[in-house]
Amino acid sequence: MIALKDKKQRTAEWFHFLQSEICKEFMAIEEEGSQQTSDMNPGVFNEKNWKRAGGGGGKMRLMNGRIFEKVGVNTSIVHGKLSQEFRSSVPGAKKDGKFWAAGISVVAHPLSPFIPAAHMNTRFIITSKSWFGGGGDLTPIRPARRQAKKFHSDLKKVCDNYQQDSYTKFKKWCDDYFFLKHRNEPRGTGGIFFDSLDSGDWTADFEFIQNVGNTFKNSYSQIVKATRDTIWNKADLEFQEIQRGRYVEFNLLYDRGTLFGLKTGGNIDAILMSLPPRVRWP
Amino acid sequence: MIALKDKKQRTAEWFHFLQSEICKEFMAIEEEGSQQTSDMNPGVFNEKNWKRAGGGGGKMRLMNGRIFEKVGVNTSIVHGKLSQEFRSSVPGAKKDGKFWAAGISVVAHPLSPFIPAAHMNTRFIITSKSWFGGGGDLTPIRPARRQAKKFHSDLKKVCDNYQQDSYTKFKKWCDDYFFLKHRNEPRGTGGIFFDSLDSGDWTADFEFIQNVGNTFKNSYSQIVKATRDTIWNKADLEFQEIQRGRYVEFNLLYDRGTLFGLKTGGNIDAILMSLPPRVRWP
Repeated sequence: MIALKDKKQRTAEWFHFLQSEICKEFMAIEEEGSQQTSDMNPGVFNEKNWKRAGGGGGKMRLMNGRIFEKVGVNTSIVHGKLSQEFRSSVPGAKKDGKFWAAGISVVAHPLSPFIPAAHMNTRFIITSKSWFGGGGDLTPIRPARRQAKKFHSDLKKVCDNYQQDSYTKFKKWCDDYFFLKHRNEPRGTGGIFFDSLDSGDWTADFEFIQNVGNTFKNSYSQIVKATRDTIWNKADLEFQEIQRGRYVEFNLLYDRGTLFGLKTGGNIDAILMSLPPRVRWP
Repeated sequence: MIALKDKKQRTAEWFHFLQSEICKEFMAIEEEGSQQTSDMNPGVFNEKNWKRAGGGGGKMRLMNGRIFEKVGVNTSIVHGKLSQEFRSSVPGAKKDGKFWAAGISVVAHPLSPFIPAAHMNTRFIITSKSWFGGGGDLTPIRPARRQAKKFHSDLKKVCDNYQQDSYTKFKKWCDDYFFLKHRNEPRGTGGIFFDSLDSGDWTADFEFIQNVGNTFKNSYSQIVKATRDTIWNKADLEFQEIQRGRYVEFNLLYDRGTLFGLKTGGNIDAILMSLPPRVRWP
């Protein structure tokens, strides 16, 4: 039996470690640049830490670069009491609303319309219950069938290693979640999504969370490298700006994390870090 | 006592007339152009009509021009039955959900950051009750104190002509409504906003609605003409794109008409016509 105190410490340390790893990896990719961006300067992550009024805080890392037009890699470790309004919607919070939560969030909007945008989030939450949640998914602008296939296949390995049939379940969960009902269209080409993960074997669950993070980092970096040298033109950029509008619509209309964060007085900059840089509704 | 049938016909005709008047006025302004846009072509309104699956439809008028980077002037006359989910939130719809609604919606996003963006909407709704709703408000990008003052003063005259103290009430309603809670900031410099308008004198209410429409058209056109020749630069445009992000956040997070429309299967293009053309979240 692992003490809650240890679970908190280990997950918090992991999220910070992964944040640092991902930032290093992405900055190395920035350094290398690409054919079409060789005359631009490589980006570096800008660091900004914030404290939460109710308890805890976060570390924001934002880069505006030549490969990653905008990429945020944020961690937060927060705790406190949920307001009455939210207690019924959070498992195990009904009694006193006490919670502790740690997580990492990554959203990458590449400059090139041929590099898919990507999102990854994993979190550990404690109320009177405790569980992991998260997922990772790809949003190509221009079709990227091979890259989507690779991403899915990499994530499938992680899932297969964790629980039989979990990939099928988590993939469907992702498809259902990242869907724009008002347009009747998916946000991207999917990935995995899961919540309330508590198999009874905390160590196995935590290992799965670590593997999701590492695999996202590796798989997405490979996808970026495989697509970065495709040459784009003005029409590609315009199409990209319009497609990114869908991303904004999803995040502001449906994304539970975004809406929950904004309503519970979360850090605006950290929450809206997910919104793409250039967008167009013509 | 005016028959409902006549009220429907007269409001529908008015909204179509006003739509045509506003489009003509805005196209005349496009023709004139401005100092900085003299080498661009004037825009013309693009017409698109749509039918609603549940009954009725709308007339969309969209222009992408050199003064109005994007302006939509839409009317819709729709009827049908509200789904169970929405019956309790719409006055007089509890029993059978039957409704009839007509309205006009105008959203203007000028190219110049020195011309304020503007919004106007008026509507007439019938369930087992019937009422008018609507309003008009200004969203300057660069400070436009004199223009905001003029806009308010023009609308105050319309309100004073209708009901004592209505301006104070409708102005406050507007300030309360067009407010971004998550940023603790107003969307713009306000105007008026009202709903459930049914004074008992339908003719007076309808006349007020007509005056709001005409005054918006005249006041805003004068504001556009007074601000169009101010020269802007790249920094102004970038600031504009960021400020427009607030507009998107408001409409997708809070605007009742937008959320109601998207959830009840309204016309996506007509509803999201309000979103600005170029936007930036850096």
